[in-house]
Amino acid sequence: MKNSLTPFFSPRGIAIVGASSHPEKLGYGVARNLNKSGYTGAVHYINPKGGNIFGQEILKSIAEIPAPVDLAILVIPAKYAPDTMRACGERGIKATILVSGGFRETGKEGAALEEKVVKIAREFDIRMIGPNCIGLIDTNLPLDTTFLPLEMPRPGHVAFISHSGAICDALIDWSKKQGFGFSRIISLGNQADVNETDVLPLVAADEHSKVITLYLENINDGERFIKNARKIIPEKPIIALKTGRSESGQRAAASHTGAMAGADIAFEAAFEKAGIFRAETTEEIFDWARALAWASPLQGRRIGVLSNAGGPCVIAADALDREKLQLADFTPETNQAFADFLVPAASFQNPVDMLAGATAADYAKGLEILLADPNTDGIIVIIPPPPMYPAEYIADAIIPLIHKAEKTVVVVLMGGEEIEEASHRFQAAKVPEYRFPERAVSALTRLAERTEILREMDESTTPLVDADLSDTRAALKSTPSGNWLDIELAERLMKIYGIPTSPIKLAQDAKSAAKLGEELGFPVVMKIASPDIPHKSDVGGILLNVKSAEEVAQGYEMLMARVQAKISHPSLRSEYRRAKLEGVHIQKMIPQGQEVIVGAVRDPQFGALMMFGSGGVEVEGLKDVAFALAPLSVKETEKMLSKTWAGKKLAGYRNIPAVDRAAVIDILCRLSQLAYDLPEIAEIEINPLTVLKKGAVAVDVRILKAE
Amino acid sequence: MKNSLTPFFSPRGIAIVGASSHPEKLGYGVARNLNKSGYTGAVHYINPKGGNIFGQEILKSIAEIPAPVDLAILVIPAKYAPDTMRACGERGIKATILVSGGFRETGKEGAALEEKVVKIAREFDIRMIGPNCIGLIDTNLPLDTTFLPLEMPRPGHVAFISHSGAICDALIDWSKKQGFGFSRIISLGNQADVNETDVLPLVAADEHSKVITLYLENINDGERFIKNARKIIPEKPIIALKTGRSESGQRAAASHTGAMAGADIAFEAAFEKAGIFRAETTEEIFDWARALAWASPLQGRRIGVLSNAGGPCVIAADALDREKLQLADFTPETNQAFADFLVPAASFQNPVDMLAGATAADYAKGLEILLADPNTDGIIVIIPPPPMYPAEYIADAIIPLIHKAEKTVVVVLMGGEEIEEASHRFQAAKVPEYRFPERAVSALTRLAERTEILREMDESTTPLVDADLSDTRAALKSTPSGNWLDIELAERLMKIYGIPTSPIKLAQDAKSAAKLGEELGFPVVMKIASPDIPHKSDVGGILLNVKSAEEVAQGYEMLMARVQAKISHPSLRSEYRRAKLEGVHIQKMIPQGQEVIVGAVRDPQFGALMMFGSGGVEVEGLKDVAFALAPLSVKETEKMLSKTWAGKKLAGYRNIPAVDRAAVIDILCRLSQLAYDLPEIAEIEINPLTVLKKGAVAVDVRILKAE
Repeated sequence: MKNSLTPFFSPRGIAIVGASSHPEKLGYGVARNLNKSGYTGAVHYINPKGGNIFGQEILKSIAEIPAPVDLAILVIPAKYAPDTMRACGERGIKATILVSGGFRETGKEGAALEEKVVKIAREFDIRMIGPNCIGLIDTNLPLDTTFLPLEMPRPGHVAFISHSGAICDALIDWSKKQGFGFSRIISLGNQADVNETDVLPLVAADEHSKVITLYLENINDGERFIKNARKIIPEKPIIALKTGRSESGQRAAASHTGAMAGADIAFEAAFEKAGIFRAETTEEIFDWARALAWASPLQGRRIGVLSNAGGPCVIAADALDREKLQLADFTPETNQAFADFLVPAASFQNPVDMLAGATAADYAKGLEILLADPNTDGIIVIIPPPPMYPAEYIADAIIPLIHKAEKTVVVVLMGGEEIEEASHRFQAAKVPEYRFPERAVSALTRLAERTEILREMDESTTPLVDADLSDTRAALKSTPSGNWLDIELAERLMKIYGIPTSPIKLAQDAKSAAKLGEELGFPVVMKIASPDIPHKSDVGGILLNVKSAEEVAQGYEMLMARVQAKISHPSLRSEYRRAKLEGVHIQKMIPQGQEVIVGAVRDPQFGALMMFGSGGVEVEGLKDVAFALAPLSVKETEKMLSKTWAGKKLAGYRNIPAVDRAAVIDILCRLSQLAYDLPEIAEIEINPLTVLKKGAVAVDVRILKAE
Repeated sequence: MKNSLTPFFSPRGIAIVGASSHPEKLGYGVARNLNKSGYTGAVHYINPKGGNIFGQEILKSIAEIPAPVDLAILVIPAKYAPDTMRACGERGIKATILVSGGFRETGKEGAALEEKVVKIAREFDIRMIGPNCIGLIDTNLPLDTTFLPLEMPRPGHVAFISHSGAICDALIDWSKKQGFGFSRIISLGNQADVNETDVLPLVAADEHSKVITLYLENINDGERFIKNARKIIPEKPIIALKTGRSESGQRAAASHTGAMAGADIAFEAAFEKAGIFRAETTEEIFDWARALAWASPLQGRRIGVLSNAGGPCVIAADALDREKLQLADFTPETNQAFADFLVPAASFQNPVDMLAGATAADYAKGLEILLADPNTDGIIVIIPPPPMYPAEYIADAIIPLIHKAEKTVVVVLMGGEEIEEASHRFQAAKVPEYRFPERAVSALTRLAERTEILREMDESTTPLVDADLSDTRAALKSTPSGNWLDIELAERLMKIYGIPTSPIKLAQDAKSAAKLGEELGFPVVMKIASPDIPHKSDVGGILLNVKSAEEVAQGYEMLMARVQAKISHPSLRSEYRRAKLEGVHIQKMIPQGQEVIVGAVRDPQFGALMMFGSGGVEVEGLKDVAFALAPLSVKETEKMLSKTWAGKKLAGYRNIPAVDRAAVIDILCRLSQLAYDLPEIAEIEINPLTVLKKGAVAVDVRILKAE
């Protein structure tokens, strides 16, 4: 157990090592900002050159620092970092921020130096943020350890954790013009010790942080990240921008499942598993954050729209449609109430257009009517610059109603200079306001999803199988790393986890093939047996509907000859040329059903990533697949199915008859437990899983052992 | 031919009818704005009450207005509109703006009044903008006929045409804080006379308007709109926000094609045909407009990125990837040039991260290097607030380079207060600048597409068939409106347009069925003949691979009995219950190939809308379809195919063999000409079109006559 991170945000005293009185030095910037921040504890300055700063003596060594001191900010040349860290340790300082660059980000030598520093920190039980970071801000404590020549952001309810210091810099400056504030900002830099997962509980515990936002370039310990996030989500929403999508190409993989599961898909699945909102753009993060911090979750998706003009109403209606929110169907009482006070040319239906003559009192009356309608869950009030009076009149009229309301209200203030004062008033009143309907609707959608996420989070996955895996583990050991499990072992695993298979037997000559066919019962399917040929149809290695012992015997000879000829052909993929043909697999033919693929691939960060998709070439051609992290709950599996055409077809579509959808869900859950239980396995693919009217059968199961 | 619209933007004199000296009246607002605008022609005020305004006498009647007067702005109660319009006509005024509301937008009576006004206008050859609009602004003439209590927008290069006055109001105000200006603004209101298509040439002809933006709620005359837009696009880009997507549900339609082609799909196809950029959000319009107005089109998609921090670079790289732009591969000389002046820890690869210490001179040097690299087509310069000096230093250093450059440069200025001055300098220098990389990349993408659109626009569609349609037209007349054409006529049309079909014969008893089978040659396909049953497989109405005369005879009896039983069954769709069975169609069986659907549906605004998609249930289940407007060029057809999985499969995929893709393109082009030539036809569907190794055959052709 690592020691606590709390000193970072409640230090009784702070040392700035490398403090300088030269304004162009970063060591000056840190001293200046910490002083200006209003931090009330003791501040100590250290620099071997000594001197004075802000009328206080600069100490020459860390050893001289008087108590209390809990946190050291190191703004020193990289090469001095190891000795400085040791001096901190000897002085009993347990929390450090290594601001300096010159480590891992510069190459090999820097990485070695970074490792050296971390080793010393561990030795002394010191936690370290950085290196190569801009440190911390807490607007409520207050505390500012950055060197940026910026005023502190205004106090607010959004916590921001970032892998990039420049993004912090830009966002602090941007937020001031956008009218929102931050509670805590943490710049993590190279994350040589403290990482995003470590600091999540630290901001979650802060009463001022009502929503947590993340700028991530990677995640170091995926499973712990998800665990920490899931603990926080019921209390506080988390929004993440994960960059580096473009770098996450396809994996080198042996199965369809592996080939389709790019690294970014694992992040997507991880955020979904944890209940984290994933933003596509920087602006989205804070559009959503303001709504999540200030407004309550939407209890449903039925939205009322109130405006004084038609154009913005249509834009809002389009945006609602795009985000799958609904224009609420008003009760007749609501329509009547509007008819009673609006001019006849106004629109009393949703969206309500009160026309350009609407007064601030009309807006208030309209909002009251919409809040009272039992068919609305949330309201959007749209305010283009009113032609005859200032927009802040409307703000003053409706803010008290919004504060009293039990339903969520967001405001669209369209314009620039004319609505600026109104915008300030809404911000001061903590009412989420946006310039355009599209962005307000995007934020509202997150409020609706928040309710849905909280509802779904209660369902935990309980293991379906309580298997004794000791024999299996031993058997797995006998398969060489990076190889396919032999077919018997794969079948045994399916049996342990309760996944029905169609028995498959290996014949090594025509005669025994015929005999096996008789034992299994006709018709049978014959497939070339070779662990080196994953796509058997590519080499003509499959015979369907073989109906008698004679046909099986002939089929055996034919398959062996045909595949041998095919794989020797120079036009074929070179990896097949060395393929070993072990004989022919005989399997009872399964009645026709729907064919789907299910699979699993081990992600280095997040563990077993499950796949469901269309059978046949469509899985890759059409990319008709969905992914989710193991272990799967029934609801998570339902969601996977509903994302794909293959999943929809299972319930029947036009002349395609319905098959046993529940069996597929059960099998996916079981397979996810298998993949979760056995990290020795790199990839599993059942292709096809044939889904029948009753039940489903894993016709071809391939399992790859991890390297 | 309607008369010219030029008086609207070059009136030698303007009359304000309904002018008022009471500041709370709209008639005062119009007078005030026109005066303040700097309009240099004569302004005349008319009000039967007389009086004075701005030291000038208010005339009591329109007849009294002295020459010159070319434009009248009518700010009067709706009921006086007809007489006022007549008075304008009698005075010889040919251009009017009817500002007042109280017409079509208020219901039936208002609509009748509007029609009356239009009739009078037509009588006198008067063109009218409105009613229910805010009029015109020209920032260069200058001219402002609105009543809004706003300063005129600053002069700029963006023209804006809007169906909504409130949107104009909001955008004028918003634009001032965003730092861009407008050339012309036209609020069209109810478009009782002048509509969006009419005014397109009017803004296109304005030298100050470099890009045309549209806010549209509908389009009145689709074909002319496309024609006008296509004429303008080679000179000036057009961006449209078309709202009302959510209202455009599915059509009532008889075919898959019709069912899939929602009204919004026709707009999408129209914008694509015309080469118009379609924005999803209001902010996108102006993000794109600034880039299109100020920067030259990108000659390719290879982008260099220059920054002083890593985080923003990764965001930019992700955005480039999402928009299918590429990170340029630098030449070795470029990498070397960066290595020569940057510190070793910087990143010399694309995106270039010069690190936080980068000076304004470094930015300039870096930009020069990137501009000189033959592998870059455009550059994004990203500037988070520099920690040690103001951002405007960078603006001053790079603006001269950007002005000199032949390549496109866009700037991302991340922040708020710290970058405000830099932002003003870039705006003044007409350099497109954005707050976040995502939005800059979105704008760059339009610059790349602009080049591609211009390149593709040269290709015009030349008719493939020069058919004499007089006989066909006569035959079409004999089919009742809203009915399916009989199979012979449908086949005849296919023949005229050179679309291969598989001959199909109607048998009305078992014996003649057997004979027809022998004539066609076995195997054959048998299908129940009933114009009332579009989906024959739903009722078991198809027999495949029938191999002999006896089988055909038996098949006939069986099909008739089976379908009769099926359609009488109470569980079946009620419309089938009255279906008339005419016999059985016999058709030679086509060899196996890929099955696709091609079709056409007549859109009331835009004419024939062509469809291509997956055969079978996937067309609707998977929505694997693409649409484009007739007549189709080969390139447009290629694009349709490339949008669908069905189209990709034609070229072969894994074990699916390639088929004759060119034949499909040829057939779609021919079918589009047919649909274009014959407006009497409401829907056509070839389902399936069987695509073979060589050629393609329309196996089932259904054609619906228009109502």
